[in-house]
Amino acid sequence: MARLTEIEWEKFEELPLEAKRPYLERSVGDSMPYHTLFAQQFDRPLLDRLVALSNRIRFIAKSREGSLFLKSFLSHKRAMLYFSQPSSRTFLSHLAACQILGLTTGSVRDAATSSEFKGESREDSIRTFSSYFDMIIMRSPEQGLAEKMAWELSNSDRPIPILNAGSGKDQHPTQALLDIYTLVRSFETKGGLDGRTVTFCGDLLRGRTVRSLSYLLTNFKDVKQIFVAPKELQVPEDVTAILAEKGVPFEITDDLRAATRVSDAIYMTRIQDEWDSAKGESAKIDTSRFKFGAEELACLGPDGIIMHPLPRRDEIATCCDRDPRAMYWRQMRNGMWIRTALIAATFGLEKDILNCGY
Amino acid sequence: MARLTEIEWEKFEELPLEAKRPYLERSVGDSMPYHTLFAQQFDRPLLDRLVALSNRIRFIAKSREGSLFLKSFLSHKRAMLYFSQPSSRTFLSHLAACQILGLTTGSVRDAATSSEFKGESREDSIRTFSSYFDMIIMRSPEQGLAEKMAWELSNSDRPIPILNAGSGKDQHPTQALLDIYTLVRSFETKGGLDGRTVTFCGDLLRGRTVRSLSYLLTNFKDVKQIFVAPKELQVPEDVTAILAEKGVPFEITDDLRAATRVSDAIYMTRIQDEWDSAKGESAKIDTSRFKFGAEELACLGPDGIIMHPLPRRDEIATCCDRDPRAMYWRQMRNGMWIRTALIAATFGLEKDILNCGY
Amino acid sequence: MARLTEIEWEKFEELPLEAKRPYLERSVGDSMPYHTLFAQQFDRPLLDRLVALSNRIRFIAKSREGSLFLKSFLSHKRAMLYFSQPSSRTFLSHLAACQILGLTTGSVRDAATSSEFKGESREDSIRTFSSYFDMIIMRSPEQGLAEKMAWELSNSDRPIPILNAGSGKDQHPTQALLDIYTLVRSFETKGGLDGRTVTFCGDLLRGRTVRSLSYLLTNFKDVKQIFVAPKELQVPEDVTAILAEKGVPFEITDDLRAATRVSDAIYMTRIQDEWDSAKGESAKIDTSRFKFGAEELACLGPDGIIMHPLPRRDEIATCCDRDPRAMYWRQMRNGMWIRTALIAATFGLEKDILNCGY
Repeated sequence: MARLTEIEWEKFEELPLEAKRPYLERSVGDSMPYHTLFAQQFDRPLLDRLVALSNRIRFIAKSREGSLFLKSFLSHKRAMLYFSQPSSRTFLSHLAACQILGLTTGSVRDAATSSEFKGESREDSIRTFSSYFDMIIMRSPEQGLAEKMAWELSNSDRPIPILNAGSGKDQHPTQALLDIYTLVRSFETKGGLDGRTVTFCGDLLRGRTVRSLSYLLTNFKDVKQIFVAPKELQVPEDVTAILAEKGVPFEITDDLRAATRVSDAIYMTRIQDEWDSAKGESAKIDTSRFKFGAEELACLGPDGIIMHPLPRRDEIATCCDRDPRAMYWRQMRNGMWIRTALIAATFGLEKDILNCGY
Repeated sequence: MARLTEIEWEKFEELPLEAKRPYLERSVGDSMPYHTLFAQQFDRPLLDRLVALSNRIRFIAKSREGSLFLKSFLSHKRAMLYFSQPSSRTFLSHLAACQILGLTTGSVRDAATSSEFKGESREDSIRTFSSYFDMIIMRSPEQGLAEKMAWELSNSDRPIPILNAGSGKDQHPTQALLDIYTLVRSFETKGGLDGRTVTFCGDLLRGRTVRSLSYLLTNFKDVKQIFVAPKELQVPEDVTAILAEKGVPFEITDDLRAATRVSDAIYMTRIQDEWDSAKGESAKIDTSRFKFGAEELACLGPDGIIMHPLPRRDEIATCCDRDPRAMYWRQMRNGMWIRTALIAATFGLEKDILNCGY
Repeated sequence: MARLTEIEWEKFEELPLEAKRPYLERSVGDSMPYHTLFAQQFDRPLLDRLVALSNRIRFIAKSREGSLFLKSFLSHKRAMLYFSQPSSRTFLSHLAACQILGLTTGSVRDAATSSEFKGESREDSIRTFSSYFDMIIMRSPEQGLAEKMAWELSNSDRPIPILNAGSGKDQHPTQALLDIYTLVRSFETKGGLDGRTVTFCGDLLRGRTVRSLSYLLTNFKDVKQIFVAPKELQVPEDVTAILAEKGVPFEITDDLRAATRVSDAIYMTRIQDEWDSAKGESAKIDTSRFKFGAEELACLGPDGIIMHPLPRRDEIATCCDRDPRAMYWRQMRNGMWIRTALIAATFGLEKDILNCGY
């Protein structure tokens, strides 16, 4: 069990992410997370384990018999989906992951229907809900809340795991995992992800997916990163500082077509104007050269792939949707599989699934 | 599989309903729908098959053992209920139908909690959701959206069936099916539905149920239709044109009691003032003579039945509620059964259920 | 079956609670409720039976095998949660109770997504929903609605049980049951609940939990009740009149610390300002002396317990949260267990569970 019981909250909170990691592991000897809070918990061996487990689950689920076998694993458990920040996509993806493993679920999808209006603190709400469930999957606009709840629950007489499905501006670890899974799967039979070039394009300043994926990619060998954005929305320096420190080659540019010609994967993102400090702030930025359409498609190599965390607006023209290199729909489904793998691993089922007869 | 892959959207969209039908079938050789989009997909042989399947499912579900047997059929599948137009009744009825067959479900019941606020198109939303599920049951204020999604999904690399649970002003096919099922069941031991007289009363202009049911009734032999409404809300000409073309006898009147005296079934509807073009428009119409109360009940024969798609306001007085001829509560439950049958048939289970040991 | 079929609504409605009770029982010879509407349905023998059943269920659920065994009991049934008054806590607790017994569920959690906006009466809505489900768990701001629906459904051709999860200002019977269960469990190995002193503190005027729990405690021997509140929010006379009539000793005071020194259990409640007749009315009352903090904790004996129905604001300082005498988190979980027991008993499973091999 995580040793969060041995450290006070104030001390834990101030640790750097790398130092927090061991407190969140399932047990001494198993580095798999018990609480999944941030992308930095995953190193290359863990990513490889999750990819292998996802592949296996995906294979087992192909048959009716296999699906029912998977459902039997956690049909005695219940998961709570606490989404105080609306998101149908992330909600349904986690829900499906729970259902694949047989978990029954309950949900709060809207703070307005919760008793928070009666003046209860979020900590109290979540702790109460934990009374009824065996796991909490939570999404919240409040930075750090998932971390606080993980500490609180581990220090209660009813510890249960927390899975962070997005908190504030900072972390959305399972999004980064599904991106890695999509990249690994796409190059699986073509020599692997090592040595590839990945281009990020769009709002690189405020999208938490870019931040997390850029970090996770440093776990792979010789993956070059190119950042294409209008200068107001370019990748922040703390992200490139990590790359520089780790000796990862990267490039900053505003030329999407040139980047596409040398890239194996293009990761498009939308303008995150919900974080604008002034209304309409984003609208003043010229984003016309940061969109992927027919001409950009022509620049992409035959083995190249196009990704997008979705929802999209017009960053990718719909004319690309049926190109076999468009990976964004499959990316969504990959999210379901890797989340299933992560939940299974959280409950200690990794070996049972890998070693099963299927 | 539906051959929607062989026709472009623009061409498909412009086909008349009758011509669209074969594109939506499960397979060559099985005329049962894969996508259920409009009432015109159902002819007499299909209606008879669905009625038989509903009856069988209803019988099997009577015992605990039978219920568990039914639940085993689709417990490896997941259905998505996408209701961007609020409707508890239709939602819960479809939900129950899924649950009877063991389908686990996810839902979006409110566009506000969805990521549409981030500027995503509905097509993208629904296609994403399809990643996680094996069927989509959808209700939308947007006319034609279900049809568009059926085409989109059939042309994606992950085709799954669409069940239209109400779209715009035009179609609500399962409502028409449940009405037919109620009529057939009510006259089952009394010589059948052929040769009967069915009276529609209320807002015949804007209720999509009247339109669909009137059409489906033409599949039965010698069923006369009487339309009772204030002249501003009388049945539109395109509906009666179809009757005239098919040689179906019909009558237009404003005398509910006279109609009741010669009818086997009275189908009451409420004023659909949510479609008013000007606020309060409907309130100006005198609807006092288009309500069913104690005096109308006295006009109805002993084998006659009263139906209503619900919700009702005051079109039927509550004093009728316990009369054995009041069929509107049972009508609701019939909806659950015929939707169960339709979903089972969509997944190709018709024969398995009919031939099972129960 | 409840003999609600033998009495007219108008007559039933006017009966005193005690006289209503037999109409709501499962059957002649089994006093367990079929419809659970108010706390007054539970006498000492019934409370003892529910406590025993809860304990047994809690024990069985400890193992995976036991959990799956419990889930098998009602996996052929469906429950509807109709919550037109928002409450995540009560909702999730009942949901979990259903899931423990294998019931599949559907829910309406917000009147706005229901078809009530189309002018339907609540009675019609609930009766319709009953078509699809085998039980209704309902919470409503409307006093008496649960009672009306119980009568309506028992008099329909599809009677199903109603479980009142809170109606208006008056009744919230399962809250009172979980409070009793918590008290009984807390003193189980310490000589029992008889002869103890229970102190209520806070808004004793408007909290329906205080009213119900005070009543249920009269079923136990020699339990003294102390009421600590600002005079504007003191316990109403009809509550103390019952105590006086039954010869139960009680005391009215405004000194929480003195009361704590002589009490075995402190039941804190929050100011229910949502019932204020004028906005801000409650804010004018000085409640500073009716909060439980470090100093009050020091007054409490080593076997004493602190309870709270939650949500709390600042009535209990968070510094008390980890004291082993703080029982409010466990109280929540007890709610899930006793609701599971009640639902099981409603469906006639009491003996099956007590006599099973676990």
